Amino acid sequence: MSLIDFDADRCILSSPTAMPLAAGFLWNPHMMIHMTARGYATAQFMQPEPSKYARAQIMEAKHFMLPEQGTYAHHPGRFFYVKDRETGALFSAPYEPVRAPVEAFAFEVTPTRLHWTVDRPGLRIELTLTLTVDDACELWEVRLINSGARHRNVSFYPAFPIGLMSWMNQSANYHAGHQGIVADCVTAYQKIEDYFKNKSLKDKVFLLSEQTPLAFETRQARFEGEGGLHKPDAIMAEQMGDGVALYENPIAALQFDHELNKGESVTHRFLFGPAFDDTEITRLKTRYLSQDGFATARAEYVAYMAAGAKSINIDSSDPHLNAFVNTWLPRQVYYHGDTNRLSTDPQTRNFLQDAMGSAYVSPKTARKTLLKALSQQHANGSMPDGITLYDGAELKYINQVPHTDHSVWLALFLEAYLDETDDYAVLDELVTDKETQTARSVRDRISAANQWLIQAIDYRGLNFIDQGDWNDPMNMVGWKGKGVSGWLTLATAHSLRLWSQILERDGRDGSAFARASQAFNDAMNTHLWDGDWYGRGITDDDVKFGIKSDVEGRIYLNPQSFALMSGAADGDKQKRMVTAVEDQMETPYGVEMIAPAYTHMREDVGRLTQKFPGVAENGSVYNHAAVFYIYSLYQVNEAEKAFELMRKMLTGPDDEDYLRRGQMPVFVPNYYRGAHRQNPEASGRSSHLFNTGTASWLYRSLIEGLFGLKGSREGLRIAPQLPASWASARVTRHFRGATFEVEISRGTPALNVDGEVVTGKVIRDIVAGKTYQISVTI
Amino acid sequence: MSLIDFDADRCILSSPTAMPLAAGFLWNPHMMIHMTARGYATAQFMQPEPSKYARAQIMEAKHFMLPEQGTYAHHPGRFFYVKDRETGALFSAPYEPVRAPVEAFAFEVTPTRLHWTVDRPGLRIELTLTLTVDDACELWEVRLINSGARHRNVSFYPAFPIGLMSWMNQSANYHAGHQGIVADCVTAYQKIEDYFKNKSLKDKVFLLSEQTPLAFETRQARFEGEGGLHKPDAIMAEQMGDGVALYENPIAALQFDHELNKGESVTHRFLFGPAFDDTEITRLKTRYLSQDGFATARAEYVAYMAAGAKSINIDSSDPHLNAFVNTWLPRQVYYHGDTNRLSTDPQTRNFLQDAMGSAYVSPKTARKTLLKALSQQHANGSMPDGITLYDGAELKYINQVPHTDHSVWLALFLEAYLDETDDYAVLDELVTDKETQTARSVRDRISAANQWLIQAIDYRGLNFIDQGDWNDPMNMVGWKGKGVSGWLTLATAHSLRLWSQILERDGRDGSAFARASQAFNDAMNTHLWDGDWYGRGITDDDVKFGIKSDVEGRIYLNPQSFALMSGAADGDKQKRMVTAVEDQMETPYGVEMIAPAYTHMREDVGRLTQKFPGVAENGSVYNHAAVFYIYSLYQVNEAEKAFELMRKMLTGPDDEDYLRRGQMPVFVPNYYRGAHRQNPEASGRSSHLFNTGTASWLYRSLIEGLFGLKGSREGLRIAPQLPASWASARVTRHFRGATFEVEISRGTPALNVDGEVVTGKVIRDIVAGKTYQISVTI
Repeated sequence: MSLIDFDADRCILSSPTAMPLAAGFLWNPHMMIHMTARGYATAQFMQPEPSKYARAQIMEAKHFMLPEQGTYAHHPGRFFYVKDRETGALFSAPYEPVRAPVEAFAFEVTPTRLHWTVDRPGLRIELTLTLTVDDACELWEVRLINSGARHRNVSFYPAFPIGLMSWMNQSANYHAGHQGIVADCVTAYQKIEDYFKNKSLKDKVFLLSEQTPLAFETRQARFEGEGGLHKPDAIMAEQMGDGVALYENPIAALQFDHELNKGESVTHRFLFGPAFDDTEITRLKTRYLSQDGFATARAEYVAYMAAGAKSINIDSSDPHLNAFVNTWLPRQVYYHGDTNRLSTDPQTRNFLQDAMGSAYVSPKTARKTLLKALSQQHANGSMPDGITLYDGAELKYINQVPHTDHSVWLALFLEAYLDETDDYAVLDELVTDKETQTARSVRDRISAANQWLIQAIDYRGLNFIDQGDWNDPMNMVGWKGKGVSGWLTLATAHSLRLWSQILERDGRDGSAFARASQAFNDAMNTHLWDGDWYGRGITDDDVKFGIKSDVEGRIYLNPQSFALMSGAADGDKQKRMVTAVEDQMETPYGVEMIAPAYTHMREDVGRLTQKFPGVAENGSVYNHAAVFYIYSLYQVNEAEKAFELMRKMLTGPDDEDYLRRGQMPVFVPNYYRGAHRQNPEASGRSSHLFNTGTASWLYRSLIEGLFGLKGSREGLRIAPQLPASWASARVTRHFRGATFEVEISRGTPALNVDGEVVTGKVIRDIVAGKTYQISVTI
Repeated sequence: MSLIDFDADRCILSSPTAMPLAAGFLWNPHMMIHMTARGYATAQFMQPEPSKYARAQIMEAKHFMLPEQGTYAHHPGRFFYVKDRETGALFSAPYEPVRAPVEAFAFEVTPTRLHWTVDRPGLRIELTLTLTVDDACELWEVRLINSGARHRNVSFYPAFPIGLMSWMNQSANYHAGHQGIVADCVTAYQKIEDYFKNKSLKDKVFLLSEQTPLAFETRQARFEGEGGLHKPDAIMAEQMGDGVALYENPIAALQFDHELNKGESVTHRFLFGPAFDDTEITRLKTRYLSQDGFATARAEYVAYMAAGAKSINIDSSDPHLNAFVNTWLPRQVYYHGDTNRLSTDPQTRNFLQDAMGSAYVSPKTARKTLLKALSQQHANGSMPDGITLYDGAELKYINQVPHTDHSVWLALFLEAYLDETDDYAVLDELVTDKETQTARSVRDRISAANQWLIQAIDYRGLNFIDQGDWNDPMNMVGWKGKGVSGWLTLATAHSLRLWSQILERDGRDGSAFARASQAFNDAMNTHLWDGDWYGRGITDDDVKFGIKSDVEGRIYLNPQSFALMSGAADGDKQKRMVTAVEDQMETPYGVEMIAPAYTHMREDVGRLTQKFPGVAENGSVYNHAAVFYIYSLYQVNEAEKAFELMRKMLTGPDDEDYLRRGQMPVFVPNYYRGAHRQNPEASGRSSHLFNTGTASWLYRSLIEGLFGLKGSREGLRIAPQLPASWASARVTRHFRGATFEVEISRGTPALNVDGEVVTGKVIRDIVAGKTYQISVTI
């Protein structure tokens, strides 16, 4: 059996140990849960700020010393212990924390549930986690099956550590009315204003059971005892001690004893999550905690997931890619647009790029996002560092650092959105901004944003970078007010060109923006073409960087990508750049973002250079940057290279690649380790972070680039750029309410629609609801 | 054998499991380390803000999602694994994380080192941890002894998890030049100003070995493997894999193989700590990492500890108390004064009360503290919430919340300091404050602080409380500007009385302050005497609380204590108060601070009422409050009650008490669990926190109350208040450079100095350097 079995419906991992961090994730509008195959969990819910209901055993981060600080063990997880009451043999499913050997193991990630099947001698346990649509609540179904030849006498224990809830007040007890454990706390605070803020927080955590437990334990320390989490005293005992947690870290552990004849099984259902009060717990229990409740919730959740429509369905000679593109990638795109990455102040660039993905799977979401973003535009036309999603939300973390690129993403988003929807009416929508309370049209606002970019330049005509652009940690290139960004200059040129085109298509005069675009491209060619590639910028002290004379950070990917998009690079430059990237930046796991990675601080570049070599912005295969490059390659018809790099974004399908990357192919991560030439031993390792601007651009590159099924005012433009290794491919494209069944094959270039030859590449006069049969030869 | 063997030189715990959180601590001016008997460690060093060099495996606290977030296990600790290479048998010393059974176990806390002896079949391991005086550096000496009858072939592995250092950059490798592992990181930050702040941080962590290791491992995840910390893959292997940590959580693990004949032993020495760069590591290695280096460092450290002089040495019929008073309590007092609790912005009240303790063990420190505090006095005479200890230090956490009591501690400190030192000259010292850059005498400043208190009153003459007084979380009594503190009113009365007395003794007119003091006492008696005790205050809405009609928070201890000190309570009131406290607040583990504890939020009292019942300010045996009461009882000659409650502050000596409290008697903790009548099952449990204002007041109560050896302008006043159960006691008192050998016995009251009868209670004309033989009958 192969390590991973992967298709559009499921991804099954057959080992609990081969890829220790392999994981899947589920979400709904209220929460997200990320679970490893082994049973560790990271979950957040929104109230409205992201919050946890199962935490670590300590409060880390710098803090004053705490009373009664216990020693601790282990990551939050969802553990199901099973003890043979006759032999004393113990295991836990899925795998942690006992880590007992298994006969067979299957961790099955589907778009709508996480499922495990664990076989031990004579016993099988099946676990299923699903979410609801309307609540922050985990639905667990557990089936314990006597798969052996003899009668079994077992104890079964769900045990969910809740962790250090609060140093002010935490406790837990069994609640007979709820038939489960309820932990309670008071979120810790010191300032009086926080009391009023915290009053509405969900400070309770519950584990409710459909069956009445025999016994329980709520004290983490007593649960573990001297045996530890892998052999807990409370479980090795005949019966749990019904312990009440009084200001100590809680665990929700229940005991059920079962006698199972050969072939017999027993099914448990549990709810786990946060709650404000007993009324809410009662409501959740009533709604969900039954066979019917689970079935209804499941149906609702499946429908919720299906609401994230797919733009294409592909059938290529690469089944691995098919599976990814037909299910997993649009799912990731939908996640981004639907949840805003569980942030309440998404970075403006992320907010708009994630919305670009929504243009293909949920156009209404995309439109709302644009209007929301523009409502926070500054009076001078520039876009803020982050968009606050509710009144009272604050710009946090990196959003407190000034970056200059946020205004360029409007036109980039809009090109995709308008091509897909033809919703030019949105340009006339009036948006009132918070700062000045002025109503202006979307069109005026986007012109203003681009005008702001036009004037935010130095004497050379290059865009100032301030404390960063798309590249957040590049914070010391221009913090003194002089440094400029080569990438941003190209991104502005690209934005201006797109905006001029949109205006023209809308019957307006876009020529001023087109001329301005050319000026930015010219300035770039004048000042930052380095002979074989574009430099990344010029520092406050007038030093060019990202150029041949640099030993580290010699070449940056983003300027090359955007020079291809913006039209700055002529054919000769294009060829040189692609060659340079290939020579210096490509790896078996994708293309790096910077090469060579910095190994020490460069004070005129900034924080980026302090990151570990090959990690994140410092020379990893940072997929967001890699997909910019892939997208740009399709723009200049470098189809082979584009496909080669795109294909490397997926993990697998061979075991060696899975083991190296450590990730299941159910999402594209924000990066794989780079610095391949410097640290080959770690190269390729996945970041396991599924929040990334990659998803939307990758989906777009597939739809519009690889399969060449791009919208326009006139209709659907058909111009596939299949790799040479593909003889043919079939695609179903959903576009403006119509369906296009597209067959791509090799031959004399021709386009045939419903049996008729079409001249040119565009299918016009599309009728919603209709299915078109397209045959295209390339 | 008893669980704990305790005397003035050492405290030995003979079980690794009976008291899981039992611990000792060491410090020097640069760092503090708190280690449990089992081997878990919490260490901090100052750079200048408190920092960690061994951390948890995750960065907890609310944060954005991180790339490559690993799953994790276990608290930071110092683990020494030993594997029998013939049998494969594994154990770890002191006890974690293998938790293998021991034949014998001794965790020995001495004032200057932590020492373990662990006996396994045929093998003994001895561990010693000492500190240096000048550096943040742990000195570990480990002796492995073949105590059995046969030749042994063992592998020995020190393994110190370093934890998640930084999400920006972390790594570790073996450094042949240093002969040890060096982990490196870049402290994570996002704002440019933090780059400049962080540049001087010690971002390296080292584990250096005197002997050359055979192999090493620096990757926590690979070290543990599937075996886990209790059976690490790296240790079960024949030889460690010399793994380099590239952006992953590091561990410093070394392997040494030894062949030991019967009776043979081998000694290892290690250094562990933070460093700025390789130069610093080299310096530390050169200075300390040798037998001589250890010996010299140890001698220096013993001398440093001895510099915290003891004020008394007692020989009573209570050996447990003798040991505590002769070593452990003055050590804790010294720690507070010397380190300011490893804070750079100590709360003003803590700063001054800790300095009050220093008056007995390190008067120069006490004097400096007073002058430092006054240099941050506000222009209006009031004292700030915290004292910043270096330029750039900021008021953090609770010091950002306005409290009104900070000005009362000046006179309380000064009474003790002047009685002990007779340094009235300090009153003429000129202190320039930061706010106004005005030079004023200490005398004027303390008068100004007291004047501020005099005017900070409502129409009834009671002191406003704002968002708290000594009782930090009582933040909603007066946040609207009207609520008053009964306790603070009495504390002001006490302060004013003390200050008037000091002025009078200094030959000035203190009568205005004396009259003002009386007015505060009168106001309290008029408005807050509740019939059997004093109420705690009156809320913004004019509601008295801490009174009989309250169901929760019915009686507060502090107003009673300070009414005894301030003279507010006449004889009848005194009797009623003491009876009320006895009936409602005393427990087997001391006297509670509030009774009954609050079980839900009371919005006109505040955050205090949200703490868990019986924890911290919400009704624990909060020893700082308890010792106020004890001190006040000695002021009114309630010697029996005072001693009874004082004695309950020490854990032990019987096993039942140790097991209940869970703490060794090497320090007094900030609280024991209270709410004894509500949650008896947790009652008595120690907080294990050794930062507490209790220490100074307890030492003072012993010196001036129990043993009645109090200084004054005239000399040493002798008025012991022994408990009835003591027939006699001997005390050596160090006072103003002279030594007093005091014998206290029962009989007709009389005082005999060097064989001559003295009239009155005061020994005058003390000659420094002289030893006096005192005999006092009571």
